[in-house]
Amino acid sequence: MNLDARVLHPAASCSIPAARWQEGCLAPGHEVVPDEVPVALVYNGISHAVMLASPQDLEDFALGFSLSEAIVRQASDVRDIDVSEADEGFVVAIDIAAGAMARLKASRRARTGRTGCGLCGIESLQHFAGELAADGEHARVTPAGTPLAPAALHRAMSAMHAQQHLHHATGGAHAAGWADRDGNVLVVREDVGRHNALDKLVGALAHAGNDNAAGFAVITSRASYEMVQKAARAGIGLLAAISAPTAMAVRIADAAGVTLAGFVRDGRHVLYTHAGRLGG
Amino acid sequence: MNLDARVLHPAASCSIPAARWQEGCLAPGHEVVPDEVPVALVYNGISHAVMLASPQDLEDFALGFSLSEAIVRQASDVRDIDVSEADEGFVVAIDIAAGAMARLKASRRARTGRTGCGLCGIESLQHFAGELAADGEHARVTPAGTPLAPAALHRAMSAMHAQQHLHHATGGAHAAGWADRDGNVLVVREDVGRHNALDKLVGALAHAGNDNAAGFAVITSRASYEMVQKAARAGIGLLAAISAPTAMAVRIADAAGVTLAGFVRDGRHVLYTHAGRLGG
Repeated sequence: MNLDARVLHPAASCSIPAARWQEGCLAPGHEVVPDEVPVALVYNGISHAVMLASPQDLEDFALGFSLSEAIVRQASDVRDIDVSEADEGFVVAIDIAAGAMARLKASRRARTGRTGCGLCGIESLQHFAGELAADGEHARVTPAGTPLAPAALHRAMSAMHAQQHLHHATGGAHAAGWADRDGNVLVVREDVGRHNALDKLVGALAHAGNDNAAGFAVITSRASYEMVQKAARAGIGLLAAISAPTAMAVRIADAAGVTLAGFVRDGRHVLYTHAGRLGG
Repeated sequence: MNLDARVLHPAASCSIPAARWQEGCLAPGHEVVPDEVPVALVYNGISHAVMLASPQDLEDFALGFSLSEAIVRQASDVRDIDVSEADEGFVVAIDIAAGAMARLKASRRARTGRTGCGLCGIESLQHFAGELAADGEHARVTPAGTPLAPAALHRAMSAMHAQQHLHHATGGAHAAGWADRDGNVLVVREDVGRHNALDKLVGALAHAGNDNAAGFAVITSRASYEMVQKAARAGIGLLAAISAPTAMAVRIADAAGVTLAGFVRDGRHVLYTHAGRLGG
């Protein structure tokens, strides 16, 4: 796949008046801040969700979101993505296969029906637990092959840092990157939201037809259950996070066969699940 | 209001097997990680949402969420909150006033109707923009009184740090705190999610009948538009964040009359809006 060298997207940040305070002095000036923009995701003409996102790589975001949310089962079920700018944000029109659209409509009807007719709290929790269990059963992660060197995680985290243009400009953006077995970072996607950054990465990998068993993903955030769920659904076998995982994230990684590494920084890391993907 | 000295909640974290890697050595052991637990919020018997949260201070969470999401307009519209543990998580039954419940049902019907009959992306964006504009118009934030000392922000950030028990145990939790004009931290709430932490704080302040114009809120995260929206809806006039704001957060703070300070750390900060609440 392509190495993509990218620069800061012009719409993803802006300069605004602000004043810096330090040692009792207030100095007026300007600051560069990341923008978050409403993005309406429209499937086959029906508006599904409005997400707040950094307005760059929205085609990747749309494809990654569709895969992460299991709206489509494979990238080829997304037939076309059209991004257009409106007064209030962006509209992303996603054309998906008829079968996927029928499932999406059915799932929306079921959800509405349940909530509308007074579903009790226990049923809501059971529904949530059922969806999680299904993820573990249907994980696409392939078993570990030859272990990779632990130091590759640290090489990748450092290499990704150099490519976080939005973060360098604003101090306020997350990144998700893809690295090969040696820790060379091949793709980086950024967003004000960590979930969006990972969705964009998943979409970029799918667009490129990447083999998600051949390397690993790196994220600049904590690993909550949703981050592990997105990785598992994309068939990513190793997720390396700069910060802490949650207990639920560890349980899901364990069930789905994902190797989860946390606190990947300062030449150290902690391995929570499926340590076999990494050598000694 | 009460100073509340609190310790680590037993259900909010757990110890799991994990292995630390450092300098080529993998040392098996155990790590303490924060848990995130499904919490079903049930209004007058109807399940409204399942949130993932740290299972502590759930009464505060329920009240704060109800206020932040504008499900109720004042705390007195929440008549009772009952937290119970189930196999798959927690059920929080919230008894709200009949008028609030009627509005909630109508808003759920309207949303379902719109999405179900093929709302277009532009309409979704306009709906979102309309809700934001309404927030600016109906802000509860009172105008600035006597300015407070800028150093109070830094005193509060440091003082809150000492009280982040869940974060100290796990390295992976956010906090939101309330400080008086001198930077003394009176309340701290923690959660794996920054939105939840602020909702818990808003609920704790409402439970205590706090005057939210008499001090300020401190958060250990970035300030996205939702964080500012929650503060504005709670009538909090000053929000101090340890990291960056987004451009949309700055616009909302400006419209709602909230003083927004970012990068509150290392004895410095940046003021984005309504600087009059702070002295020189």
